[in-house]
Amino acid sequence: MAVNAALGPGGTGAADRAAVLVEALPYIRQLRGRTVVVKYGGSALSGADPAATLASFAADIALLHAVGIKPVVVHGGGPQIGEMMGRLGKVPEFRDGLRVTDAETLEIARMVLVGKVNREIVTALDAHGHLAVGLSGEDAGLLTAVARDPALGFVGDVGAVDADLARRLLAEDLVPVVATIGSDGRGQAYNINADTAAGAIAEAVPAAKLVYLTDVEGIQADPGDPASRLDRVTPDELDELVGSGAVAGGMIPKVAACVRAVRTGGPAAHVLDGRAEHALLLELFTEKGVGTMVALP
Amino acid sequence: MAVNAALGPGGTGAADRAAVLVEALPYIRQLRGRTVVVKYGGSALSGADPAATLASFAADIALLHAVGIKPVVVHGGGPQIGEMMGRLGKVPEFRDGLRVTDAETLEIARMVLVGKVNREIVTALDAHGHLAVGLSGEDAGLLTAVARDPALGFVGDVGAVDADLARRLLAEDLVPVVATIGSDGRGQAYNINADTAAGAIAEAVPAAKLVYLTDVEGIQADPGDPASRLDRVTPDELDELVGSGAVAGGMIPKVAACVRAVRTGGPAAHVLDGRAEHALLLELFTEKGVGTMVALP
Amino acid sequence: MAVNAALGPGGTGAADRAAVLVEALPYIRQLRGRTVVVKYGGSALSGADPAATLASFAADIALLHAVGIKPVVVHGGGPQIGEMMGRLGKVPEFRDGLRVTDAETLEIARMVLVGKVNREIVTALDAHGHLAVGLSGEDAGLLTAVARDPALGFVGDVGAVDADLARRLLAEDLVPVVATIGSDGRGQAYNINADTAAGAIAEAVPAAKLVYLTDVEGIQADPGDPASRLDRVTPDELDELVGSGAVAGGMIPKVAACVRAVRTGGPAAHVLDGRAEHALLLELFTEKGVGTMVALP
Amino acid sequence: MAVNAALGPGGTGAADRAAVLVEALPYIRQLRGRTVVVKYGGSALSGADPAATLASFAADIALLHAVGIKPVVVHGGGPQIGEMMGRLGKVPEFRDGLRVTDAETLEIARMVLVGKVNREIVTALDAHGHLAVGLSGEDAGLLTAVARDPALGFVGDVGAVDADLARRLLAEDLVPVVATIGSDGRGQAYNINADTAAGAIAEAVPAAKLVYLTDVEGIQADPGDPASRLDRVTPDELDELVGSGAVAGGMIPKVAACVRAVRTGGPAAHVLDGRAEHALLLELFTEKGVGTMVALP
Amino acid sequence: MAVNAALGPGGTGAADRAAVLVEALPYIRQLRGRTVVVKYGGSALSGADPAATLASFAADIALLHAVGIKPVVVHGGGPQIGEMMGRLGKVPEFRDGLRVTDAETLEIARMVLVGKVNREIVTALDAHGHLAVGLSGEDAGLLTAVARDPALGFVGDVGAVDADLARRLLAEDLVPVVATIGSDGRGQAYNINADTAAGAIAEAVPAAKLVYLTDVEGIQADPGDPASRLDRVTPDELDELVGSGAVAGGMIPKVAACVRAVRTGGPAAHVLDGRAEHALLLELFTEKGVGTMVALP
Amino acid sequence: MAVNAALGPGGTGAADRAAVLVEALPYIRQLRGRTVVVKYGGSALSGADPAATLASFAADIALLHAVGIKPVVVHGGGPQIGEMMGRLGKVPEFRDGLRVTDAETLEIARMVLVGKVNREIVTALDAHGHLAVGLSGEDAGLLTAVARDPALGFVGDVGAVDADLARRLLAEDLVPVVATIGSDGRGQAYNINADTAAGAIAEAVPAAKLVYLTDVEGIQADPGDPASRLDRVTPDELDELVGSGAVAGGMIPKVAACVRAVRTGGPAAHVLDGRAEHALLLELFTEKGVGTMVALP
Repeated sequence: MAVNAALGPGGTGAADRAAVLVEALPYIRQLRGRTVVVKYGGSALSGADPAATLASFAADIALLHAVGIKPVVVHGGGPQIGEMMGRLGKVPEFRDGLRVTDAETLEIARMVLVGKVNREIVTALDAHGHLAVGLSGEDAGLLTAVARDPALGFVGDVGAVDADLARRLLAEDLVPVVATIGSDGRGQAYNINADTAAGAIAEAVPAAKLVYLTDVEGIQADPGDPASRLDRVTPDELDELVGSGAVAGGMIPKVAACVRAVRTGGPAAHVLDGRAEHALLLELFTEKGVGTMVALP
Repeated sequence: MAVNAALGPGGTGAADRAAVLVEALPYIRQLRGRTVVVKYGGSALSGADPAATLASFAADIALLHAVGIKPVVVHGGGPQIGEMMGRLGKVPEFRDGLRVTDAETLEIARMVLVGKVNREIVTALDAHGHLAVGLSGEDAGLLTAVARDPALGFVGDVGAVDADLARRLLAEDLVPVVATIGSDGRGQAYNINADTAAGAIAEAVPAAKLVYLTDVEGIQADPGDPASRLDRVTPDELDELVGSGAVAGGMIPKVAACVRAVRTGGPAAHVLDGRAEHALLLELFTEKGVGTMVALP
Repeated sequence: MAVNAALGPGGTGAADRAAVLVEALPYIRQLRGRTVVVKYGGSALSGADPAATLASFAADIALLHAVGIKPVVVHGGGPQIGEMMGRLGKVPEFRDGLRVTDAETLEIARMVLVGKVNREIVTALDAHGHLAVGLSGEDAGLLTAVARDPALGFVGDVGAVDADLARRLLAEDLVPVVATIGSDGRGQAYNINADTAAGAIAEAVPAAKLVYLTDVEGIQADPGDPASRLDRVTPDELDELVGSGAVAGGMIPKVAACVRAVRTGGPAAHVLDGRAEHALLLELFTEKGVGTMVALP
Repeated sequence: MAVNAALGPGGTGAADRAAVLVEALPYIRQLRGRTVVVKYGGSALSGADPAATLASFAADIALLHAVGIKPVVVHGGGPQIGEMMGRLGKVPEFRDGLRVTDAETLEIARMVLVGKVNREIVTALDAHGHLAVGLSGEDAGLLTAVARDPALGFVGDVGAVDADLARRLLAEDLVPVVATIGSDGRGQAYNINADTAAGAIAEAVPAAKLVYLTDVEGIQADPGDPASRLDRVTPDELDELVGSGAVAGGMIPKVAACVRAVRTGGPAAHVLDGRAEHALLLELFTEKGVGTMVALP
Repeated sequence: MAVNAALGPGGTGAADRAAVLVEALPYIRQLRGRTVVVKYGGSALSGADPAATLASFAADIALLHAVGIKPVVVHGGGPQIGEMMGRLGKVPEFRDGLRVTDAETLEIARMVLVGKVNREIVTALDAHGHLAVGLSGEDAGLLTAVARDPALGFVGDVGAVDADLARRLLAEDLVPVVATIGSDGRGQAYNINADTAAGAIAEAVPAAKLVYLTDVEGIQADPGDPASRLDRVTPDELDELVGSGAVAGGMIPKVAACVRAVRTGGPAAHVLDGRAEHALLLELFTEKGVGTMVALP
Repeated sequence: MAVNAALGPGGTGAADRAAVLVEALPYIRQLRGRTVVVKYGGSALSGADPAATLASFAADIALLHAVGIKPVVVHGGGPQIGEMMGRLGKVPEFRDGLRVTDAETLEIARMVLVGKVNREIVTALDAHGHLAVGLSGEDAGLLTAVARDPALGFVGDVGAVDADLARRLLAEDLVPVVATIGSDGRGQAYNINADTAAGAIAEAVPAAKLVYLTDVEGIQADPGDPASRLDRVTPDELDELVGSGAVAGGMIPKVAACVRAVRTGGPAAHVLDGRAEHALLLELFTEKGVGTMVALP
């Protein structure tokens, strides 16, 4: 018989704890049974404590899943590919500043993305139950690739998405984890930009949310100043930020996918700092959020 | 363009808010898709600010529902029946200290439970969407009553439960709200103790949890001392508390139902203070809880 | 061994009995699997021998159900509400000749309709098996009410019908019994005219038949002369009868609902004398019928 | 506007008509959704006015079907086979008093049963809608035959019944009409006694009722006296009647199938006079019945 | 322990056997799960060794079925009808060169088609398992007939096709075998040309292939010269062949059905020599084929 | 208009081609809708012309799939792992003659198996349509591993198989391709012998056939003499062959899995030479076969 030492019903903090749960209610209700596509950056996996970052990310995905939301994880792995190329003595080749993906590079990229990065994410998720199924974009025609530019070799754009397998896995309460290798339907694989692929998959499923976890604090008006993070931004404002160069580099395909999603009436789009603990939960389930939401004015 | 004033990712309290959400995870996961039978006491509905208490209760039920848990609300209404009898000039009759339920009393009880108390709960829930369906135990054979003692008139015990309709409503994501009037299958209604009926319904559905919301702070080792609330108690300990008189009165049928549930391998059983804000959420989704859980040692 | 005393195969009357069954065939075939909305008048429940009338009505509904027709019962209860208001010492208030429904009146009306009249009908039906489920228009958004006139208080018109719950119960071979209290979706209940609500529900389900059981012998060309009952009448003829005053009073909303149903290609509409034994069966299953059918010329 | 000339609600006979409908209620309820196997005798098809008899029979089957009962018609056709053999100049051969079915006889029997008698029944039923599907026992393995006695040629007993196809057609609301030609599974057809096959099919489906329509007035205690028809008889009594010779000839396989059905807890069994108009309806839907029911004491 | 005497992996011919299987792959893949309507000619059943021809045909149908293709067999039976009419002493009557089908002729035709020819095909198929279900066009409204010309009696054209029963049997992996007797929906049967009916059924199901098995080697440019068989022909070319008289007689309705099928975007159409062993397999599963395929240029 | 040059119906070889198709019939019928687990050896992928061998294998799998058989491909990849270790400068470590799999080795093995070998098989299959889905044994709990011996590091045995995901993919007509990395359920991966895993998966699905494609000609009585290949062998005979050393090395786990399968009433088991063209088709669809079948006497 365990007598309760506390005086009030629930002890210190009960009201605060209840308040957080109650605040989360309308968000959870709105997303339950719907799909959230989360792009998990390769850079997060190669950061200061990648194992801890991944474990925190996996816990968040498992929470979404536990409350009935259907996450799809899409990931890249540029740093890991580069590291393996170095270990294998493969020297990157550039043309007009863009990396050329020859057959050997493609094979290494596929091996690392599907056989290493994808596996690490699946493993982290499986610590919360048999939740995850690793997929390559080649599986069951998920991502059909078209060559971007013959001079670049096997770098592909998204030609078509067949989200049927993903939808079936979601219907079975499983979490698809997608490495963005596509196939041209004639047996040739291509490496596809994971940010772009995430947007295309979110459109095809279709998803209610498209979330980019990056290694910066959302979209910033002044790229050097984290304090200039925007809570909310419109597609038109993003066009201006890109035009002025305030948004640049790897943020471009993310922003392009967000703008396209919002302008076509697709999923709401978010860019978050994936290094912050439980950023995903806080952005989706609290009023304030912790990143940048792209939305119509 | 809304620039974020806060310095850190999420501002003050983000970690605390995340912690609450993360703590709730295993509880939500464990209960998702399962049924929780909640007995809502008539006394709560006639307390200091019954409308506010009911609204808080309804918000909690809606939260459970939003995260995929399937609540069934069972309610009594003794005080409300008494008040209506008074207004209609009906004088209660007692035999050996127990109230006699003649035909007119039964009709008043049914009218008040089904037409007033049940409706108020349904209305409060519907503020969160078209969630609720009011039921009487007579509907589709839900509660078959057997007379307890001819001298007491139409006071019934639970003879059988046909939970089929309740299960179908749950499968359609609706919340059954049950007034515990039973039928003897030959067109005669009986008033059934709501505490007992809640236990029988929880057994029949079957439910994963059976929760009593009362107007005391859980089960107390010393009935006069709220600080003696037990966090956790075993069926054997409860037998002792009943034997010693520490547990008595209206708590007896609750405790009997809890003991039966736990001893037969049925739902886990909880007795909470329904007057505390969000007691239901805090008991189900936090480690500490705010009431008494009945469990095997 | 029981030797048969009769001479012919089946004895006296076999041919007549067979003829009745054979006549019923095309009607039963036409209605099987389809919905019949039956408005059961509150006046019938307060007539000379209301229990017998109700039992006969319930037997007819059970027969429809047994042969695979799907009945929905909609009921009012004006006399019963008036009686309870009298017992509670509540004096009716009128404005321009119309009764004002203040909050207390609404609460009494709801209590009587949902907790008493509805229950009596459910109980009568359950003598034929666990057929019936009592519903209020508030359940699962069945009837959304809009205020008719602020001066009249909580008197509502039908704003919208969500027949989803009713359809699910019908699909499960259950008989919904509906008390016509609606909700405005913000937690306020309204009393809705049951004749109007029956028409709206028949349209929404949708039903194949809409039947009004009243305490007169169908629609009469001369309101004082039962022998002037019309077997069949067109919407245009009804407009004339209303214009001339031959149809008036409580018959107006019934006739309006019938005319709307027939003119919009909805259910066939019938007005019958609910006091006649098995009037429902005879109207639906025999060529001659016993009331008035509203139909296009 | 059609004014009603009658005085009362429903005119003369309304009460009687209602009484018949009300009497039929418990019977219809009990049989709805269940299967009734009806053996229709070849002799009925070659009687005084076979077309009228068949039309009346078809109307009864359509009524059963319309109220949700699932009939299976099993038929023979001895007289029609005999007639065709005569037209084709085929002389019957007997051995020990039993007709020998050689290959040519079997082919004629099959042609007449499947191509003529079966078609006439299907056609008569189709006057009531697209209800019927003609089957031979050879279709989809419905009746597997085993040779009774090599000396008799292709006369078969029922070796096995695969009622799967029949059940599927019943589930689709179709009426299987079965000619009792069986196959030995190696491409050889056999003629099977239709009375025996009807019993085996009723057992396999399984059916709730097994009804024999014959050209006598049920089972008679004194075969020469129609007034001695038994309303109800037990298996033991039937054994005695067979032993004493009171039941003989073509009634033997009917009685054997009835006794087997009742003793094994299978369908209730009835023997009726198929020449009487609507005998099937009257036996199934009225208390008195018009034939003999075989039942345990 | 059985030691293998052959030297190579599979012995002589393994490569050839593999080649045949591999060639069949794209054809089987293309047809799997789709319907092939095969018209089996009555003349084949009355040829030199009809039993052997039928057995070979049945084996082919069973192979199609085994690999997941859904065959429907449609058959005529002119020669068999003529033979039975002769045996019954019925003299054919002609009007303007066309045979008149009076009531007796129609009854004989139905008896022979449904009770004899249809049965022989079902029996042959059942040697490969319980595959087949014999149907008449009268069953469940499969073929609604309209009189072609009153002077010709009960010769019908196809008025409508209700392929619902056929589709359900196909869905259950059964093979419908159809005798082309139609009904006019008022209880009158008609004899319908089987070639025309096969085309109408193929259109209604709908089928992927329509195949005519005849007693000539496909369609020939020169009717007297088997070596002039056309591998492939267009509808326009067929029009010319009919205009020039090269295609005539019983080939006309086949060709008309093929042309209609191909021009309306319906099934691909083939005319084969049904006397050649396994012609059906070779035409469907090998590149070269053995008959004439009708296709757009 | 394409006139046919050949003289006979189908030209030379038609009969032979038909014979092959007809011989395959009973085998295809028997396996349709059932699962065949095929272990594809890593050595085949690193043979003389691995691309051609893989293409031929993929064509066979696609043929099985096209005719409705449900293949599961299980593969290893020892040579490829060894090659990658060499390229990465990783020196294999042995303990008592067995290779030690440390964390780095495990990561390389997983990367090569899941990201390279698995992908090559999926790609080869997808040339025949979107058939294939690559899986690791970690996905959705397919293979739970238990450590074999701590001294050997992350070498695992099969602890449990959850074939649910595989069954769902098969039900959707997809071909699972499985890399045999297992998880211990706590986030640690293990390398599992693919031969053993194939047997365990075949048992769990359950499969009708378990086929090992190796680089020898089936099981040989004399390991040095291909001509001593056994067509058929019993479990007892295999025990002897293992005891005598005639069966040894990498054949041991294959033989152990076959023996277990056959002795427990599981799938029939075959060992074939995967280098022979279309060995899989010839073994499954011809009477003679090309490898060794393990079966009870």
